[in-house]
Amino acid sequence: MAKKADKTRARLPRGFVDRHASDIRAVDEMCAKIREVYERYGFDPVETPIFEYTDALGKFLPDQDRPNEGVFSVQDDDEQWLSLRYDLTAPLARHVAENFNDIQLPYRTYRAGYVFRNEKPGPGRFRQFMQFDADTVGAPGVAADAEMCMMMADVMEALGLEGQYVIRVNNRKVLDGVMEAIGVTDEAQKLTILRAIDKADKFPVSEIAKLLGGGRWDGDKEGEGDFTKGAGLNDEQITRLINITGWREKNSGSVGASNTITIENLLLDFENSPKVTEACDELNTIQRLCAAAGYDEARILIDPSVVRGLEYYTGPVFEAELTAEIPNEKGEIVRFGSVGGGGRYDGLVSRFRGQPVPATGFSIGVSRLATALKNLGKLGQDPVLPPVLVTVMDGDTEAMAKYQQFTQALRAAGIRAEMYQGNWKKFGNQLKYADRRGSPLAIIQGADERANGEVQIKDLIEGKKLSAEIESNEEWREARVAQMTVSEGELVETVHKMLAAQAEASKS
Amino acid sequence: MAKKADKTRARLPRGFVDRHASDIRAVDEMCAKIREVYERYGFDPVETPIFEYTDALGKFLPDQDRPNEGVFSVQDDDEQWLSLRYDLTAPLARHVAENFNDIQLPYRTYRAGYVFRNEKPGPGRFRQFMQFDADTVGAPGVAADAEMCMMMADVMEALGLEGQYVIRVNNRKVLDGVMEAIGVTDEAQKLTILRAIDKADKFPVSEIAKLLGGGRWDGDKEGEGDFTKGAGLNDEQITRLINITGWREKNSGSVGASNTITIENLLLDFENSPKVTEACDELNTIQRLCAAAGYDEARILIDPSVVRGLEYYTGPVFEAELTAEIPNEKGEIVRFGSVGGGGRYDGLVSRFRGQPVPATGFSIGVSRLATALKNLGKLGQDPVLPPVLVTVMDGDTEAMAKYQQFTQALRAAGIRAEMYQGNWKKFGNQLKYADRRGSPLAIIQGADERANGEVQIKDLIEGKKLSAEIESNEEWREARVAQMTVSEGELVETVHKMLAAQAEASKS
Repeated sequence: MAKKADKTRARLPRGFVDRHASDIRAVDEMCAKIREVYERYGFDPVETPIFEYTDALGKFLPDQDRPNEGVFSVQDDDEQWLSLRYDLTAPLARHVAENFNDIQLPYRTYRAGYVFRNEKPGPGRFRQFMQFDADTVGAPGVAADAEMCMMMADVMEALGLEGQYVIRVNNRKVLDGVMEAIGVTDEAQKLTILRAIDKADKFPVSEIAKLLGGGRWDGDKEGEGDFTKGAGLNDEQITRLINITGWREKNSGSVGASNTITIENLLLDFENSPKVTEACDELNTIQRLCAAAGYDEARILIDPSVVRGLEYYTGPVFEAELTAEIPNEKGEIVRFGSVGGGGRYDGLVSRFRGQPVPATGFSIGVSRLATALKNLGKLGQDPVLPPVLVTVMDGDTEAMAKYQQFTQALRAAGIRAEMYQGNWKKFGNQLKYADRRGSPLAIIQGADERANGEVQIKDLIEGKKLSAEIESNEEWREARVAQMTVSEGELVETVHKMLAAQAEASKS
Repeated sequence: MAKKADKTRARLPRGFVDRHASDIRAVDEMCAKIREVYERYGFDPVETPIFEYTDALGKFLPDQDRPNEGVFSVQDDDEQWLSLRYDLTAPLARHVAENFNDIQLPYRTYRAGYVFRNEKPGPGRFRQFMQFDADTVGAPGVAADAEMCMMMADVMEALGLEGQYVIRVNNRKVLDGVMEAIGVTDEAQKLTILRAIDKADKFPVSEIAKLLGGGRWDGDKEGEGDFTKGAGLNDEQITRLINITGWREKNSGSVGASNTITIENLLLDFENSPKVTEACDELNTIQRLCAAAGYDEARILIDPSVVRGLEYYTGPVFEAELTAEIPNEKGEIVRFGSVGGGGRYDGLVSRFRGQPVPATGFSIGVSRLATALKNLGKLGQDPVLPPVLVTVMDGDTEAMAKYQQFTQALRAAGIRAEMYQGNWKKFGNQLKYADRRGSPLAIIQGADERANGEVQIKDLIEGKKLSAEIESNEEWREARVAQMTVSEGELVETVHKMLAAQAEASKS
């Protein structure tokens, strides 16, 4: 035992959390439903480890201005740098490239796993979180992108979110075409524009305009705080860029879809841009394929305002947004927003292969989606029954062996059960433990009962109800807390019956 | 696309592996069975993140001579050091200490998760692997240790290993008592002895004796290679230590239990040691509790030769060993050995609390156990059916929409299905894909069939069988590969019937 002065302080690093039973069970339940949809679509599980060589992972994180910012890295003993994966897509690209000759294309796989961001943690912003991805590698056509959108719609509906979500679809080529049309050709400038646009969730449109133009101070006033250099666009360029995104509507604070930018608008604005035309053709094809399979615009919506921050997207991009009005922990109605997204990343495997390997995929933010489902009352509605408690009245080996036998007999009959493992000498502590644990029944055997081969069963649910109903002390003493004495041989059967009766009573 | 010269090399860091569908599905199946047992015993899931502050994690890894050796560590931007967990027990101790006032003791929890060792990788030795632990914190009595052993026995039997495993139980206090009895009092010396003993799996007993005595050269000859300083014991001390461990038998290479050291031997050898006596009393109590609940010595065996390398154990220690003769990948019969272990660690939470918090737990090596089960044919016997392939004959949007509709109709009926997403123009590639994928059926619709509202279904399993049976080219051309044409409206029903017929045929 440590002396007071030597004690290590028990604390979690910032941005990391412990997960409790209800959260773990809810996420497991949710992931099983997602997995069922992915499997039905013909995807198979494939997983990669959490470490990759830093160069193999690449630098595609949004909103990071320095190389390797946002990533946890360690140097191996051969001096090579390893990084923790920041998403599940970059490692998949490495996996495909490394095993290219053994892999049958198209390669349809899914995976759930933790990813890591070495960022400043904040409310709802963690440094370790789980994603659940599906990817098709080796699929050149937009039919594969359309399939991703339909699969995500089916996932949302498998989770009970019918009518409460929309899959928004855009095309990275729209932005590429628009940039070309307004005269942006420099790659670094394009990157700065992409990063500025990606900050639309954080800043009002006036601040985005600064990031697209001369630059932005992050202090309270111009000239205060840190300065971020802008993309250097002129006012007309900025206006044309901003017009195609529908931000004004998006940032007006209203719940749900309110975007008015359409393919038609876009084509009118950029009728001389072949890139924009090609991008819109792809979007129209996706829309038609989805419609033919029965997915209307309420489920899958072409929306040129969608921006995905990751740099590796090259074609269609998608985002799953919850449109339901969802109460948060404080009961306030919040606009929940995106719970997942993805897109086409034709260049990611090519980085390794030097030959084109088209690919598209989707990633679900597991914790975010689980939180939304819990707040909507769509998850964890079937809680696990706490165990029956076998109490300990005597500590000699003979008595302990009896308690152990009862416990094992209950378990063998498929009943969750535990023998009290704390200090048994204070019986009150055992009942307090059972109460806080929510145990449905307590099994009790003192020396007298043991001599008679009998055992007491106490109904703790009924007991709690009685103590809530009975107000006066006198009534309380007179009322018998629901309990019964049976022979040892009848224990399992009686417990079965009492649990069934409790289940029945809890329904009414 | 990268130019040849710019290409990044796709490779996994040493000691890490990608996991494939069959492995993932097998491990999931196994973990579900383990979880069911843990839940039945009244344990609830609780998880910690993969990072901990380095000081909170402590230095308890066996076989590491330098501090923080064997651990992956990074410095946070506030200069504090974080490490990846090397097991699930040290983080649980931190979790309990940090949330001590909110936690109801005894605290019975389980968790599966990856752990990390920054070691030289080798065959079967990985730097990321999964453990599946259960722990009872706040349980002072050996009844809790006995429960752990019974639970592990039940896990083994839930996995179909009845009669093919044994849970071996020892007590760290035996070694403590023996060291005291032979006159070892120095803590550093004790640690060196523990580390030497823990190398019993790697070295013959003669080499262990060197590590207990003057030291050991790791080259081919004395004086060659690196020198490891020994514990400095004299010959009599070494002999007495070695005698209690039963190593000679253990290292003789025979399969199964062959240890002859018993509690009786031990007590005779160290009859004047109160520590050894106390340790043996605890072991006898565990044995009696297990026997009373029906676990005989074939399932839970007291065995003073068991050593657990982790430094934090303070009392009973256990090890789950597979005694079955298990063929490896090459078909050789190997002694599989330990697939999990654990013990009492009364000091681990106390490090933070400055008050005693007794605890005991068990950890299963998930990959090792899964490998053993697969080699025994006890896992993955019910493989997932590959998807039905909807082939693509025409690439116009109208035709594509049709294929998409077929695919979605099959999925809506609960049938795994996928539309071909590769380059559709070479039809042969589509059938090759279906073949390599193991697809049971292919759906085909050309322009003529589309005009008639019909669709072809090809039975690929039957087709394969026929092509194996038919030897001459002529016969092959004459034989009709099993296929039929139905109206679009009959597609789902016919596919259902054909899959059912295949399932029936595969049984006979």
